[in-house]
Amino acid sequence: MAEATNQFETDLPRREANFAPLSPMSYLMRSAAVFPNATAVHHGRAYSYREFAERCRRLASAFAKRGLGLGDTVAVMAPNVPALLEAHYGVPLFGGVLNAINIRLDAGAIAFILEHGEAKAIIVDREFSPVIAEALKRMDRQPLVIDYDDEMTEAQGGRRGPRLGEVDYEDFLGEGDPAYEWQPPADEWQALALNYTSGTTGDPKGVVYHHRGAFLNAMGNAMVLGLEQGSSYLWTLPMFHCNGWTFTWGVTAMAATHVCLRKVDPALIYPLIEEAGVTHMCGAPIVLNLLAHAPADIRRPLPRPVRVMTGGAAPPSTVILRLEKQGFEVLHAYGLTESYGPSTYCAWQQDWAELPLEQRAIKMARQGVGYPTLQEASVRDPETLEAVPADGETVGELMLRGNTIMKGYLKNPAATEKAFAGGWFRTGDLGVLHPDGYVEIKDRSKDIIISGGENISSLEVEEVLYRHPKVLEAAVVAQPDMKWGETPCAFVTLQEGEELTAEELVAWCSEHLARYKLPKRIIFGSLPKTSTGKIQKFVLREQAKEGV
Amino acid sequence: MAEATNQFETDLPRREANFAPLSPMSYLMRSAAVFPNATAVHHGRAYSYREFAERCRRLASAFAKRGLGLGDTVAVMAPNVPALLEAHYGVPLFGGVLNAINIRLDAGAIAFILEHGEAKAIIVDREFSPVIAEALKRMDRQPLVIDYDDEMTEAQGGRRGPRLGEVDYEDFLGEGDPAYEWQPPADEWQALALNYTSGTTGDPKGVVYHHRGAFLNAMGNAMVLGLEQGSSYLWTLPMFHCNGWTFTWGVTAMAATHVCLRKVDPALIYPLIEEAGVTHMCGAPIVLNLLAHAPADIRRPLPRPVRVMTGGAAPPSTVILRLEKQGFEVLHAYGLTESYGPSTYCAWQQDWAELPLEQRAIKMARQGVGYPTLQEASVRDPETLEAVPADGETVGELMLRGNTIMKGYLKNPAATEKAFAGGWFRTGDLGVLHPDGYVEIKDRSKDIIISGGENISSLEVEEVLYRHPKVLEAAVVAQPDMKWGETPCAFVTLQEGEELTAEELVAWCSEHLARYKLPKRIIFGSLPKTSTGKIQKFVLREQAKEGV
Repeated sequence: MAEATNQFETDLPRREANFAPLSPMSYLMRSAAVFPNATAVHHGRAYSYREFAERCRRLASAFAKRGLGLGDTVAVMAPNVPALLEAHYGVPLFGGVLNAINIRLDAGAIAFILEHGEAKAIIVDREFSPVIAEALKRMDRQPLVIDYDDEMTEAQGGRRGPRLGEVDYEDFLGEGDPAYEWQPPADEWQALALNYTSGTTGDPKGVVYHHRGAFLNAMGNAMVLGLEQGSSYLWTLPMFHCNGWTFTWGVTAMAATHVCLRKVDPALIYPLIEEAGVTHMCGAPIVLNLLAHAPADIRRPLPRPVRVMTGGAAPPSTVILRLEKQGFEVLHAYGLTESYGPSTYCAWQQDWAELPLEQRAIKMARQGVGYPTLQEASVRDPETLEAVPADGETVGELMLRGNTIMKGYLKNPAATEKAFAGGWFRTGDLGVLHPDGYVEIKDRSKDIIISGGENISSLEVEEVLYRHPKVLEAAVVAQPDMKWGETPCAFVTLQEGEELTAEELVAWCSEHLARYKLPKRIIFGSLPKTSTGKIQKFVLREQAKEGV
Repeated sequence: MAEATNQFETDLPRREANFAPLSPMSYLMRSAAVFPNATAVHHGRAYSYREFAERCRRLASAFAKRGLGLGDTVAVMAPNVPALLEAHYGVPLFGGVLNAINIRLDAGAIAFILEHGEAKAIIVDREFSPVIAEALKRMDRQPLVIDYDDEMTEAQGGRRGPRLGEVDYEDFLGEGDPAYEWQPPADEWQALALNYTSGTTGDPKGVVYHHRGAFLNAMGNAMVLGLEQGSSYLWTLPMFHCNGWTFTWGVTAMAATHVCLRKVDPALIYPLIEEAGVTHMCGAPIVLNLLAHAPADIRRPLPRPVRVMTGGAAPPSTVILRLEKQGFEVLHAYGLTESYGPSTYCAWQQDWAELPLEQRAIKMARQGVGYPTLQEASVRDPETLEAVPADGETVGELMLRGNTIMKGYLKNPAATEKAFAGGWFRTGDLGVLHPDGYVEIKDRSKDIIISGGENISSLEVEEVLYRHPKVLEAAVVAQPDMKWGETPCAFVTLQEGEELTAEELVAWCSEHLARYKLPKRIIFGSLPKTSTGKIQKFVLREQAKEGV
């Protein structure tokens, strides 16, 4: 606190009665007290908020009895099941730090993360016991292993592997006290969660979240997506992805229902939307794509509107339009692991309703404006840090700052300093600021194609490819070119049963793009994806080089 | 921040990129940036968010040019007009502290407040220039006086007094810079506003708010009352009352519309609800009463549902039912000046919908549960501080704690210490905790009537009186009694044109109350009110004594 400089700062310090560290744990405490009978979790059966909170307290207590305490890491390897959700409370409740691991990682990456994060315990869904067994073999550290045996495994497309640990999750809960008393963190800056970036180059970095940031971003989510008591949120977004973009805490804040789901499969999703009264969900564009293009016998009309937040890449306008026709309301958000997931979103403007569908979808695909809980989102010159003019043309780097930006990278001060240089978090994404104040990402710095001195946005070319009715997915990268330096190379997956030649597709592009932006080469086939469902452009870049 | 005790607290300090002091000023900045063309203020004409923010920046800049700075107090004497709303931003934007004065106060009280709060300037709506002139005469300190000349004065039932100050408000704005740059406070604990309690005994106390608390309570309001972009909030609650329960900032947070209103008059309110598309409002029960009992030629069906938050006293169930029939949705909240206005509210439970109207209204009249932004609301033994059992019977004192509790009382450390003794803010209200976790206030400590050793809740007797179809308002206080110590004395206002005898009313009460709780005396007539519209029980207590 500043020195007492005036009458208002004299004899009026923070104290127990008027100051409490912000923490998303308070959401659980409150929802369990106020709505004890509301459904907290839906997974085969329904768990009330009373039961959910008791299970979380038991979990915290069981860890504490085993000697875990302040700052100890607990890892979880599980899809979107109750145990992973419970760990979002049961771990911080005893002062621990939750490390939710990406289930698509291989044993080597998992071993690295468990060693680097110094996990003292790990909860393992039986579907993933084989890869965890392999990871543990490679490690010196041997954390306490807790097996989670989900009876919904087979019904949701999984297979249970062998038991691995020394204790079963439900038995472990049995060791704990359902009345375990939570003490708020001494400081709201205290670490809450550890999330490793997917790390396209080098070792993954451990992003550290604090209680303050999670409290605020969760509240921002509730405001932006319009959650309320009685809402039902379907877990199509992995909880291991930025703690489910902090919806793990935001849904609880509103005493709404978490609908668990092990696998993103339209054949599971459409019936669950009906059965669990789903009103909200999130997912990468690939999830939207799957829903939009599900076979006709699986797709069905929605019983009520479902708001979908998407992010990770701009949703192609064709997908937005297609989903809207089905009854989904698509909201585009933008963020990174370092920003607790979503930190900007494309806030709806009332006058957009009058726009033709295509123009409206283009507006809606922008990254938009800062969350009410973010301090500032700004497009700036990466060298001078000067803000670019709001002309929709001048490209700069999107920079963020505020309370919903990570503490930094674990045990990596060099990377932390670099990320925060100049007082902003550097996203590495290049974009423009439109006259209406909306940000549009044009490309990752490394995704810009420089052809004959002209910048070509790979996103712009992809957007045109996506609009072709026979195209399912598309990705554009630079390929080396003797004459131009670089030219665009497109990788395209067609929709099932469709046929199209490269010439036809280039002809389509030439109707919408300047000549220098046209793909010089088109390669048909499926696209390589990262463990979080993002297209692996670095793999495509290698392929593009090889073929030249 | 705690010492680095583990890997997560090492090399990961707060810095500019990832920490920003919370401040409700950021709501204005954001709404003006994201929704510049949305209507911010409706008062005769519409002000867009762009214009509103420019006016606020001008105001801050003009004060700064006149030499005001960090911690300087600016007072405002005005009804709910744009100038008072603008001061909620224009004053804190330059680092100042807003002191909104209750317009019903007399010159003596105003002079005390201006001296005690050390106001450097005061904005005076011309309707109140006579009383301010009188107050200034009594003072040593002579603040800069700025006249606000509202063209809506006469249309909304007021009269303009003479100009008093050295500069007109609009000219003053003209001195300021519409691009004035806001710097967030160095510390979110920095003072933001000063609100004097109505002070039924002794001098009023100056309650100090900080930026953090206002940011959070405003967000809590938006969540609890369900504000969103496009909402239209009618200012039936005085802005000088706990800064309009922090809706002055909460409405802006959602880029919703502030509909100004000088006077609570159903003949103004019903047409304004239609004209300005009102969706939300707040007010003391007396406001609800006025709306419910407005003459038939003034009342009209609502064009859409209007959510009304009420507080200050429990709304009588008859009023809730009557308003519901008209299309209002009544939400009961509870709070004090010390808690930034509302800090608990009667959260709706889905199974209440099945209850008979009367039972439902009784549930809805409880004070309920803590805001999501409050840390804890608890009923405790005032001596031992132990929580009472949730049995709906054991009476204790309602105590609050969390970030939305005042910094303390200005220049009054003794009162501050007393209010916060034991780590809780003592509300002085006595109540019970129901088995469902909902608080119900039974009485102010001093409003309990002790008759023959039995406690009688004056609220309970009032509730029965209110349910009589001919009763408009009722208040019950203790009168001295030779035999019983105290007995209930009722003051009752009948609805216009109705007649009723004391005997008939006591007979009605005896159907619903134990014999010892029946009013021993009933006095018909109008009820004295405080400047904030609360019934002045201390006046009634004196009258009750006199008549015995």
